[in-house]
Amino acid sequence: MSATAPPAAPRLPLHGLRVVELGHYIAAPFATRLLADLGAEVIKVEPPEGDPVRGWGSAVDGNPVWFSVHGRNKLSVTLDLKSAEGKARVRKLVARADALVENFRPGQLERYGLGPADLHAVNPRLVIARISGYGQDGPYRDKPAFGAIGEAMGGLRHLTANPGQSEHPPPRCGVSISDDLAGMYAAMALVAACWQVKGDPQAKGRVVDVDLVGSVFSLMEGMLPEYGLFGWVRQPQGAAIKTAAPTNTYPCADGKWLCIAGNSDLIFKRLMAAIGQPAAAADPRFASNALRCENVAELDAMIAAWTRTLPAAEAEAVLEAAEVPCSRLYDMRDCAEDPHFRARDLVMPVQDPLLGEVLHPAAPFRFDGVAPRDMVRWTGPAAGAHNEQVFRMLEEETP
Amino acid sequence: MSATAPPAAPRLPLHGLRVVELGHYIAAPFATRLLADLGAEVIKVEPPEGDPVRGWGSAVDGNPVWFSVHGRNKLSVTLDLKSAEGKARVRKLVARADALVENFRPGQLERYGLGPADLHAVNPRLVIARISGYGQDGPYRDKPAFGAIGEAMGGLRHLTANPGQSEHPPPRCGVSISDDLAGMYAAMALVAACWQVKGDPQAKGRVVDVDLVGSVFSLMEGMLPEYGLFGWVRQPQGAAIKTAAPTNTYPCADGKWLCIAGNSDLIFKRLMAAIGQPAAAADPRFASNALRCENVAELDAMIAAWTRTLPAAEAEAVLEAAEVPCSRLYDMRDCAEDPHFRARDLVMPVQDPLLGEVLHPAAPFRFDGVAPRDMVRWTGPAAGAHNEQVFRMLEEETP
Repeated sequence: MSATAPPAAPRLPLHGLRVVELGHYIAAPFATRLLADLGAEVIKVEPPEGDPVRGWGSAVDGNPVWFSVHGRNKLSVTLDLKSAEGKARVRKLVARADALVENFRPGQLERYGLGPADLHAVNPRLVIARISGYGQDGPYRDKPAFGAIGEAMGGLRHLTANPGQSEHPPPRCGVSISDDLAGMYAAMALVAACWQVKGDPQAKGRVVDVDLVGSVFSLMEGMLPEYGLFGWVRQPQGAAIKTAAPTNTYPCADGKWLCIAGNSDLIFKRLMAAIGQPAAAADPRFASNALRCENVAELDAMIAAWTRTLPAAEAEAVLEAAEVPCSRLYDMRDCAEDPHFRARDLVMPVQDPLLGEVLHPAAPFRFDGVAPRDMVRWTGPAAGAHNEQVFRMLEEETP
Repeated sequence: MSATAPPAAPRLPLHGLRVVELGHYIAAPFATRLLADLGAEVIKVEPPEGDPVRGWGSAVDGNPVWFSVHGRNKLSVTLDLKSAEGKARVRKLVARADALVENFRPGQLERYGLGPADLHAVNPRLVIARISGYGQDGPYRDKPAFGAIGEAMGGLRHLTANPGQSEHPPPRCGVSISDDLAGMYAAMALVAACWQVKGDPQAKGRVVDVDLVGSVFSLMEGMLPEYGLFGWVRQPQGAAIKTAAPTNTYPCADGKWLCIAGNSDLIFKRLMAAIGQPAAAADPRFASNALRCENVAELDAMIAAWTRTLPAAEAEAVLEAAEVPCSRLYDMRDCAEDPHFRARDLVMPVQDPLLGEVLHPAAPFRFDGVAPRDMVRWTGPAAGAHNEQVFRMLEEETP
């Protein structure tokens, strides 16, 4: 659990895979966080002043809190990619690596003299995963990619909204969803390409191109073929689902919200009984899902009148006892204090040598024979914490 | 581009990887769609009446539109998992496979006699990826997992909201985000475990456990360690960002929204000039990002007064000419008609033998040497379309 802890147990699936990160901010570092959680050796190359993401959010004595998670299980070295020494060290890192992840703006790596052709000259088997806002080609390639474009252009933000006109703009997703998705796709494609290279002495490395816009757009379900066939343009549905009733999110006495899925016939009857409306359970106007959809406003008003009388956790407990699927909208306290999160080690205390005891989320995948705690081998290190160790290794490995 | 098209070109990274899907609805089928896009052979096992997701959304002559994408590049066979013949065929499929993906409720596969121990008895090297709402253990394991729980319990839905009290509930993300994320993590972990097994004759298969709640929770950035250290609970910020101004989403004359990121000093000056407020660019109350954050209400009102005078596309064009990062909130028409989407083949017409010409999204990752069009080898087949081909192959392969 510290930077000097022993290396990963070989039971982690990517034990032995060597990855270089030339990343900053979110997308590429998230990709390598997942690869490192999976057991890969990740060497993160940062500028001498550190990845600028270290300046985001809170810090304790100058040590950024988010980076404890965002940088965990990685080795950090600092290099100036504009200097001859920095470039030479990147080439040495690449010579011994299986893969590299980068998220500079398209063309920047080439301007450093470290583009795919340069890197493949050093190591023809290297898998190179590139992440950018709009991709490595196309008319928007060189447009500045700010955080929200993927969400907005990929079609998600239009849907994250209440129906009809509103004075409030559709809210952001609340997290850097387009960077996260792109990082996940880059990690997945990188491992797939490494699977192809492994065990084939003739195999060449690959270049993978992942963009934020396309990553978000990949989640649009059947909306693209429906537009193509019928001209339909999906509109936002808020918290409800047009084709199922009652299923919605309802206000509670403590200002929190309760999400309830009561749309199957049997669950609907249990829901009506639980909220003290047994007559509604037998009302012919509510006898089927189709009829309930027609009369959904009345049902939603009836349910909300009940939820408003109770704090969200109490209303949730009543409905759970009645076996009606529901969930409060968990905030971070709800997550951190929930017994299921604790029992699954989804939330776990970890000793961080820079911050003391901190809570870490588990890796989002678990493997038989590996405890979630053993997947956090060490916490995010200071910038350059592994310079001496890594640079010495490079001298020893390359004569 | 049809079910009888030749198999994948071997340049796709997962060419040669054999995957069995025992999936339904979204999470597991999305995982295998990504694996199939990457070139894996995916055999989808459906009940005789077909995966119930085929009944979702629109259809043409009984052929579901979404499934053209959701089922693409897969082989479909229909089996009754309750029957001896169905179980026997699953075992034969597993005997020749590298991996299996399933998303039954925890315990269901074991009740079929097809749990991990049964499958590993047939093929000890099989990688088994299991997707469920809450995971394979923990106190909530057996709770019904409805679509929105991952989003609600994982902490996302609380954030997808406007700040303060509101009469409207926080909207859904607009897509099945928790299923998608879990499917992505399952695919990634599956390929990682296959990388480990490949080339090691001693290696055993693995069981991977991915849950919807933990998948969403993995995106919560630094919020968990900040809660642990300081007791902070992140609250929703709507469309704005507290620490940057002006950056928000503004209403336009046509009822659409324009997302603008004008918070750096230079961009702010260009933005004020573009909207006809050059005096504001020089106003000392707006001289730095910190000062602009203090006076953000006035700035937002000024920008919105301008955006309200123009349709979103026109306002976007004015700001783009002024090099101010911005994007309309694209709906499906905007995506489908955008020149960048078309130039990148992010949107491409595909011949579907069941539907005619349909638009497909590209795979969210591209590889040098493979055109995006070549990654759509065929469209989603009818349930059982490959029964004869696959069952004959099983007879021939297993004496």
